Parts: sequence; structure tokens; C-alpha cells
Amino acid sequence: MFPKIAILGVGLIGASLGLAARKHGLCREIAGYGRSIENLELAKNRGAIDSFSGDPALVCRDADLVILATPVGSFKALVAQIAGSLKQGAIVTDAGSVKGELVSSLEAMMPEGVRYIGAHPIAGSELSGADAAYDSLYSGARCIITPTKKSDPDALAIIREFWQRLGAGVVEMDPADHDRVYAAVSHLPHLVAYTMVNTVADIDRSYLPLAGQGFKDMTRIAGSSPEIWRDICLMNRKNLIGMISVFQKNLDALSTYLAAAEEGPLEGEFRKARELRESLG
Amino acid sequence: MFPKIAILGVGLIGASLGLAARKHGLCREIAGYGRSIENLELAKNRGAIDSFSGDPALVCRDADLVILATPVGSFKALVAQIAGSLKQGAIVTDAGSVKGELVSSLEAMMPEGVRYIGAHPIAGSELSGADAAYDSLYSGARCIITPTKKSDPDALAIIREFWQRLGAGVVEMDPADHDRVYAAVSHLPHLVAYTMVNTVADIDRSYLPLAGQGFKDMTRIAGSSPEIWRDICLMNRKNLIGMISVFQKNLDALSTYLAAAEEGPLEGEFRKARELRESLG
Repeated sequence: MFPKIAILGVGLIGASLGLAARKHGLCREIAGYGRSIENLELAKNRGAIDSFSGDPALVCRDADLVILATPVGSFKALVAQIAGSLKQGAIVTDAGSVKGELVSSLEAMMPEGVRYIGAHPIAGSELSGADAAYDSLYSGARCIITPTKKSDPDALAIIREFWQRLGAGVVEMDPADHDRVYAAVSHLPHLVAYTMVNTVADIDRSYLPLAGQGFKDMTRIAGSSPEIWRDICLMNRKNLIGMISVFQKNLDALSTYLAAAEEGPLEGEFRKARELRESLG
Repeated sequence: MFPKIAILGVGLIGASLGLAARKHGLCREIAGYGRSIENLELAKNRGAIDSFSGDPALVCRDADLVILATPVGSFKALVAQIAGSLKQGAIVTDAGSVKGELVSSLEAMMPEGVRYIGAHPIAGSELSGADAAYDSLYSGARCIITPTKKSDPDALAIIREFWQRLGAGVVEMDPADHDRVYAAVSHLPHLVAYTMVNTVADIDRSYLPLAGQGFKDMTRIAGSSPEIWRDICLMNRKNLIGMISVFQKNLDALSTYLAAAEEGPLEGEFRKARELRESLG
């Protein structure tokens, strides 16, 4: 499908993309960029990339597909570095958790003859690094693609096919809508999970080892990369700040019901949440 | 170990106790009490109990061990109903998630010659009912036992052995300490999970099906029984209300960092949470 793919960032997301693209025969050659030589060597040893360099422009030279898979806060600087080396007809995409204005910015940075299509695979885990990568990460996952009015229809069709051939179910979404949806169902839950762990530590750190499976499941995502999630939360902060307020209002309501020992409203809130949660399977 | 066990409440917790006690040969006969005839029949068909009745006093007659496994809010009323029927030498215990003053109250309600020892197995799931019960629920789990100064040492030793023979690791804790620990690592996380689901629904209910695995894991416990958790949260509300404030303060701090785009403190909070979370395994 692509003679050469360049993957910028070979952590869990990028290295899994390399492994999956190779498994499905979607390319002949994969070059990788990263900051940690140890992780780049690991990605190469695991077969996620064929070669690597600490110079992203070099990695992207001659690439037919360039995938940004570093923390989202670094995308603009990275594109500025590679723009002069991109070949005519190349497609640039990404695997970032934030879209919105970032999509228009990246689109505007593309040189003439290079097309950008934003993407966000709903896959991953609290683990990070090439060590955690595996070739079926995207199989059965959803991948959100966020075209704009300026998107090239051919490039869009190619990116759609790329993810489908990796086994993902593709959903198109407006970049701003994407950020609202994932602020609510992913970014806020991460903030809440981090807060939950730090709250127990503030109350009494010695309580933590007494926690059961419920606490462990609930806070699993608090093991996620601080660097990646700092970028995501900052870039989507306009949505997040408002949603934190909604969350706090709801938690305040529970506190008020508890203070007044109002059984009915308390049980009602729990019942509503359970019905909604059960509908997700 | 006990010729006859009476289990009051044959949901996930109570019916699993019946199955486990039978599997480990800890009794000859098990009688069950409950409100739903359908669930009682299911518990009997599954072998968790041999007989049942809607009259708890009848179920407890001649029982050597009585286990309260209904929602904690019903314990006092239930003990008032059965007190006159308890046989001399019987031991009463429970599997409730709240201890504290409830332990002293139940202790004081025991007739002469009947001993009470509080217990709380750290096991269960978001599922409920005899249908969800299984005989290894307590195997490898922790069980908190909460004796008081008035506890009979023989009864304490027997209850300790009972849980150990079911495969649980027994930890003794002061009833008030228990309630503080589990407010932090279990009750507050349940409130937060319920709040998380209701918050997404308030923002836009149509976003829910777009959630990934992180959201699902984080909110699994929001599928827990509203009735059971209403009782737990109300009975432990003094601890919970203060802890909700600590949580809100921590979430406020994240919101402030986001508003001011303070990368360092935000990442610092995430990093602290990740280290603590990783220490739990």
C-alpha cells in the first residue's frame, strides 16, 4: 500500500502501528524516529521499524506515509522540522488524542503536494514504550478520522483503507466534535483517575495497599504516561475545564444527599448511572 | 465446623459464602433467608443453600453460625427480628462493607450467650444475585475482621478460622479504622464512578457508546447495586463527606493548572499518581 512508512514516535502506539502495518503487508519499509535510542533499538529488534534516526527529517525523506505518534504537544514542532523533506504526494497522518484546531494548524503547515488527514485510534493502555507494543492493538478497535473541508478525498480514502486493513472500524468526525466527545469519555476520566489515586494518598498513603479490585480497575488509567496526558489535557483544556465543573456539580449533589441522608435521590443517581453503564456492556 | 449455617441474604456475597462453605466442608446444612423467592430458589438450585424461608427467625433457629449478607442498612432490623430465635452458643457475623458504630450496636443487640464478630470480605464485583455467585469468590481475597474489646476470644478465633478455611487472608482492624480505610479506597471510588457516568450523560448521552476500554474499566463499579451502595454510603457518610472535599480540592487544583496552562504542576500530579498506582500492581 505504501512503499515506505515513517513513524515518528515508536512508543506503544507508534511501534504497534509498525508491527501491524508489517503483519498486514501494507508497506515494504518502515523508518522510525524517536528521542530514546534504547526505545528505538527495541522497536527495531521487535520488527516494528527497519531503521531509525534521531533526525525526523531524515526519517521522512522518501516516505509515502508519515505517521505522527509522539505526544500531541510536539506535533507542530515536528511538522515544522520535516516539512522541507516531505516528498510530493506524501500523506501525513497522526494518532493523537486531540484534534480540533490542531488539525487546521497541521493542515496549513503542509507543503504544496502533501496531504494531511487527522486520525485517532481508540486503542492503547496504561503501558507505554515499544516494549508494550503488539501487532493486534488496532484489530477490532475504533479509529476516528477527522477530515476537514480542505481534505483531499483521495488521501482520506487511503487513510480510511489503511486503518480498515489494520482491522479498525473507521468513524469520521468533525475535529471539534471529536475533542468534545473524547474530553468527556477519555480525558476527564483520566483526570479523575489521577485525582482518585492522589486523594487516597492525601488521606493516608498507607490505605492504598488495602484496596480491592474495584479501586485497581478504576485507577488503572492513572498508570498512563504523565507526559502524553499532560499534552492531551492541556491541548483540550477548553473542553475539559467546563466538563470538570459538571463533574464537580454532580459530586457535590451526592455529598449534599449524604449530608441530608436523602436515601431516594442518592439511590436514584446510582440507579441512573448503573443503567447507563450497563448499556455499554 | 458448624452443623448448621444460616445465611441472611443470598446475593453474590451470601450465595458465594454458601457455595464456598459447602465446598470446603465447613457445615452440614445451610438455610437461607431473602426477599425474592426467585433468587432463593436459584440459590437452592445452585447448591448455595439447602432450604429457605422468608422468615429470618425461622432460618436462624438451631443455627450455629448466622451470617448477615443483606444490604448493611437492614442489619439492625434483621437482628431485632432474629434475636429471640438464636440458640445459646451461636455466633453471628456479617459480610457488610461498613463497620464502625454498627459493630457496637449489633454487639449490644445480641442475647446472652450469643457472640457477634464483624467481618468484611474484600471481594465481590459489580454483579449481584445468586446467579453471579461462585465458590472461589473468597479464595485469595482479604477478609477484614473487626473485633472490639468486648469480643469473645473463642468466637473471634472461630470466625478467623472460618474465613481462612475459605481461602481468605484475615486482617484484624478496629471498626472505626476500617470505615476510614474503606471510605477512601472503596466507597469514595464508587461515588466517583457513578458520578463519572452521570457526568458524561449530562454532557451528551450520545457520547457514551464512543468510549474506549479506559472508560469502561474505570466505570465498571458504577454497575454495582444501587441499593447496596446507597446503604454503604449513607452509613459511612461522616467519613465520605470529608473525603469528597479532599477529592474536590485535588480536582480543583488540576482545573486551575489547566486554566493557567501550567505544564509542570499538571505533569507532577500525574507522575505522583502513576507512581502510587504502579506500586499497587
